[in-house]
Amino acid sequence: MNIEQLKQLAKRRGFFWQSDEIYGGLSGFYVYGHLGLLLKHKWENVWRKYFLSLDENFFEIETPDIMSEDVFKASGHVESFVDPICICSRCKNVERADQLLEDVLGENFEGKSPEELLKLIKKHNIKCPKCGGSLKEAGELNMMFPLTVGVGQLSKAYLRPETAQGAYVNFRQIFEIMRRKLPLGLAIIGKAFRNEISPRQLLLRTREFSQAELQIFFDPQTINQHKRWDEIKNYRLIISTAKSKKIVKMKSDDVVKKCNLPKMYVYYMARVQEFYLNILKIPENKFRFKELSEEEKAFYNKYHWDIELKFNSTGKFSEIAGIHYRTSHDLERHEKASGVKQTISIDKKKFIPHVIELSFGVDRNIFALLDFSFRETRNQIIMSFPPALSPIDVAVFPLVNRDRLPEKASEIYRHINKTFVSFYDSSGSIGRRYARQDEIGTPFCVTIDRQTLEDNTVTLRDRDTTVQIRIKVDDIEKTINDIIDGKIMFRKAGKVVYEPKD
Amino acid sequence: MNIEQLKQLAKRRGFFWQSDEIYGGLSGFYVYGHLGLLLKHKWENVWRKYFLSLDENFFEIETPDIMSEDVFKASGHVESFVDPICICSRCKNVERADQLLEDVLGENFEGKSPEELLKLIKKHNIKCPKCGGSLKEAGELNMMFPLTVGVGQLSKAYLRPETAQGAYVNFRQIFEIMRRKLPLGLAIIGKAFRNEISPRQLLLRTREFSQAELQIFFDPQTINQHKRWDEIKNYRLIISTAKSKKIVKMKSDDVVKKCNLPKMYVYYMARVQEFYLNILKIPENKFRFKELSEEEKAFYNKYHWDIELKFNSTGKFSEIAGIHYRTSHDLERHEKASGVKQTISIDKKKFIPHVIELSFGVDRNIFALLDFSFRETRNQIIMSFPPALSPIDVAVFPLVNRDRLPEKASEIYRHINKTFVSFYDSSGSIGRRYARQDEIGTPFCVTIDRQTLEDNTVTLRDRDTTVQIRIKVDDIEKTINDIIDGKIMFRKAGKVVYEPKD
Repeated sequence: MNIEQLKQLAKRRGFFWQSDEIYGGLSGFYVYGHLGLLLKHKWENVWRKYFLSLDENFFEIETPDIMSEDVFKASGHVESFVDPICICSRCKNVERADQLLEDVLGENFEGKSPEELLKLIKKHNIKCPKCGGSLKEAGELNMMFPLTVGVGQLSKAYLRPETAQGAYVNFRQIFEIMRRKLPLGLAIIGKAFRNEISPRQLLLRTREFSQAELQIFFDPQTINQHKRWDEIKNYRLIISTAKSKKIVKMKSDDVVKKCNLPKMYVYYMARVQEFYLNILKIPENKFRFKELSEEEKAFYNKYHWDIELKFNSTGKFSEIAGIHYRTSHDLERHEKASGVKQTISIDKKKFIPHVIELSFGVDRNIFALLDFSFRETRNQIIMSFPPALSPIDVAVFPLVNRDRLPEKASEIYRHINKTFVSFYDSSGSIGRRYARQDEIGTPFCVTIDRQTLEDNTVTLRDRDTTVQIRIKVDDIEKTINDIIDGKIMFRKAGKVVYEPKD
Repeated sequence: MNIEQLKQLAKRRGFFWQSDEIYGGLSGFYVYGHLGLLLKHKWENVWRKYFLSLDENFFEIETPDIMSEDVFKASGHVESFVDPICICSRCKNVERADQLLEDVLGENFEGKSPEELLKLIKKHNIKCPKCGGSLKEAGELNMMFPLTVGVGQLSKAYLRPETAQGAYVNFRQIFEIMRRKLPLGLAIIGKAFRNEISPRQLLLRTREFSQAELQIFFDPQTINQHKRWDEIKNYRLIISTAKSKKIVKMKSDDVVKKCNLPKMYVYYMARVQEFYLNILKIPENKFRFKELSEEEKAFYNKYHWDIELKFNSTGKFSEIAGIHYRTSHDLERHEKASGVKQTISIDKKKFIPHVIELSFGVDRNIFALLDFSFRETRNQIIMSFPPALSPIDVAVFPLVNRDRLPEKASEIYRHINKTFVSFYDSSGSIGRRYARQDEIGTPFCVTIDRQTLEDNTVTLRDRDTTVQIRIKVDDIEKTINDIIDGKIMFRKAGKVVYEPKD
């Protein structure tokens, strides 16, 4: 499977495609078709449910995409949110210097200075990929999109490059509303914008993207504990340290000791890994935490581990999320710049809260779901999404378009559609209809036939095994929920086995 | 009730407040706190469910906020999406000329030219509201935010001022994916951005806002029919024509004849009115369709009626949605500008589809819900949201914090929270806790007391009547659903009456 096959399927069936295509396409921007958006909404809802349930004091808010320049001056983004570039002396083409080197040499050069990168480019005699000219100048480029707001009285502003700042500048206000308790978690699911020099690999590096970020504000004196630590202390994390770079499995307790990480941080590593392995069903051997080196870390982070998945389409590990210990960096700088105290007082103790950030690239996660679900057998594509994440839950078919079957099928469709995202299809052979649903990953197909009119039963077909079982119309809902919950398992042999988990 | 009370409540309890407040606030931008966002999500889900269910060929998509300049040159926005301004000769303050006149004279001046407006300003001797200087220059200002995308090779782009163009430039692609059927409905719920000259009235006129728009593409020869016309032909629309300006109730059938509107258009008027009266529970006497005059209409519309609500806080009708017959304006211009055919062929007939747009300002609707729900009795605020839209569905309280009541209450809370948005509160007197929930509009409070431990029953309190009934723990879910569905009614007299509707 390669990235081109995924791109074609995504466009042909309505998952995603490049935006403004009729005008030649705008590089780094994508449209979600109806299936892609259903998938995105499901991912977001699963994320929301999982991470907001971790603590009763975690909430979701929404803050504007456009924020005042003051915010990003204070946060350090105006000064430090830059990428190294080099410029072709002949055609003036601009390239991101570290990525160009990575493309040619296959190593990671993140964090090196523009001058160092230019030296390496000269040493390896790398030329402009557009015209073959020599790459001479080097510099840094801020990745934020600047804007001017207002008329007459103008305000400088930026499209936010991360949702996080929305949580930081509103922290004090929300802390008061929420009756002054820590830890306080503020989640934002929303757009972020970066003027990437080289957008690439479909949804992996775009200029407009969605993030799901959770900022956890806590008393820094509590960083070496978590009230639910015991639940995960023996959980084995899949990690790759900056030093060894080897992937190893290690108990949370040992990660604390050997990687010198605080328990609070490792607790959230465990929860994030559980999210990927248990909820999104990513295979263990495709998952790793990667510790970033001093040079690679974002400028605001003390600890910074990325979550990487090894994509089938590229054969490489790529970042899809990160856990960032941002300390009191942002709140402190906002206190200094705004003059508004971010220091709080709890039980007579005064301090500026510290922050652990769980940051997820939503589009990258959607791309991962597509990548890991893609299967091909005899020229037939099957998208084997986990049932809880499939864009469409159930397809409903009348076996033939006569003998009152369409009427009965419509009735059943309307009923099921109240609970599940459903799709009605009556055109083409039943095999053709199954194939269409397999291609978009619908886990269940319900077929209405003549027997339905007699005994009110239908066939329910399972996507992954193609097994069909006959069930009562009244049991459709419960049966599907039981399958999603893992209470009913289909077996490849063709026999239906009831296998309640736990 | 006035707008200031609403603003204070909204900030104090976490519905919404101005953004970047620690830096003095960015005018025209708002933050949604956790309650405001829950309300917004509920509104969006209700909208989605209602409007996407109108036809099986209606779908939701997501397109980028940033779009190529080509799109807006073609659509006419670069040339025509302008507001008239006048400038103070002394302090250079810029005012939106028509709004300044409206503020002073109380009439609507939309659609007049900057020169006409300047004449009126002079005639009525209106001065600069900032410095008292004379307003001299007049002109037009484009309301879009321009951006530059890329590095080296630059692309001009804009933040979209409406979601609609995302549906238009992707129409052909989606029409093919959806197997070439009309009508085709494409909904987008997302951000839009306008550099308003005078942001005002909290969420009513902001610079970054959410829209929920549905573009319905259809064969223009079918405009005088709708397959479900009979369902609404006798439905009485509340309308105010551009000529008479009086509010009258008129059957859909008569609106077609007397207002010279096509059935397809009037059909959607009826569906939109039902949405406001039946789903959002807006009182009839606060609702109207307002026909826009030739000067007031947006430049792309042939028919243009706004949906207006009479707000309690302002005492005035304000626009919160619109139904726009945009003809083939956008698709035709995109065909011409891009060279990509938008003409389709169905049953050997070739044509460019026409579009009816249902356009909703999400934030304005949220503001309306807050405005219409606000009640005050003896210094106690009660937000009487329709139960299906309340940010929090159920609050759960242990009567006292001892005797195993908190444990039992937590258990019940965790169970209810799987189905309903729930909130657990154990601090303060029970009266205080009820009051806190009334203030944020939670329709149901469940209290766990000593009797609960004996017979597994709880009290369920209704917000609007303050009536309490005793029910079994196992019946909580069903009872709440029955109340939301109108199957159980509480009576003011204090007696509980079971009154199944139909």
